[in-house]
Amino acid sequence: MVNQQFAFAVHALAALAVSPDQTMTSELIASSVNTNPVVIRRLLSKLSKSSLIETHLGKKGGAKLIRKPEQITLKDIYEAIQERTLISQNTKETNRKCPISCKMKDIMKKIVLQAEKATLDHLASIRLSDLTKEM
Amino acid sequence: MVNQQFAFAVHALAALAVSPDQTMTSELIASSVNTNPVVIRRLLSKLSKSSLIETHLGKKGGAKLIRKPEQITLKDIYEAIQERTLISQNTKETNRKCPISCKMKDIMKKIVLQAEKATLDHLASIRLSDLTKEM
Repeated sequence: MVNQQFAFAVHALAALAVSPDQTMTSELIASSVNTNPVVIRRLLSKLSKSSLIETHLGKKGGAKLIRKPEQITLKDIYEAIQERTLISQNTKETNRKCPISCKMKDIMKKIVLQAEKATLDHLASIRLSDLTKEM
Repeated sequence: MVNQQFAFAVHALAALAVSPDQTMTSELIASSVNTNPVVIRRLLSKLSKSSLIETHLGKKGGAKLIRKPEQITLKDIYEAIQERTLISQNTKETNRKCPISCKMKDIMKKIVLQAEKATLDHLASIRLSDLTKEM
């Protein structure tokens, strides 16, 4: 599952991509996303760790893209903020007495990873610059 | 997001697909999935509404596939139990004063639907019979 974090991150980076050479404060980004600056700062920290943006502290602080908008795909953003797979697996213990149960974990793992790949392949085809073109 | 419900449903239907002409009790399915029969009964009710299985009450009750395993895809199962999209959109109000915020809802909606389609196209390529072949 991806909660709203991904939508927030895409929004924040799209906002930065509109003026890629300028620094934008977390307050301004938060006002565009319409959420709390704390939520945005936490998000910016993740995006910074993935080398998509650089952040500056202080009065004139804020965030700025490190890469050009055409060099950032939605897959990059997804991978920077995701914490779990889109489709969850069964986390219960395998019932060792049941031959079906013994096989299902491996079968389901493959399905989940393949489905994830299908989504990521799609997200990899969309660049941040494609989004700003629509604005 | 898809929680474990999808994994449970695939497991339950795969169990039914092993002996497609036989009725299986929710207790037996629950023991294979290793979860509570109540959880399985709730799931079977959804799968029954989507015409994937038929359920019978009473002592000899349980569930049975209506369609052949080769006629059921993982997309059918996903659509029977899904309650929301895999990727969430920003549910906050648009900031009408911000031109980026005004555009992002439509842009993000398109991304979410396309990503969902990529996943579903993949799930549509896997049949229940493909799973039982691996058992």
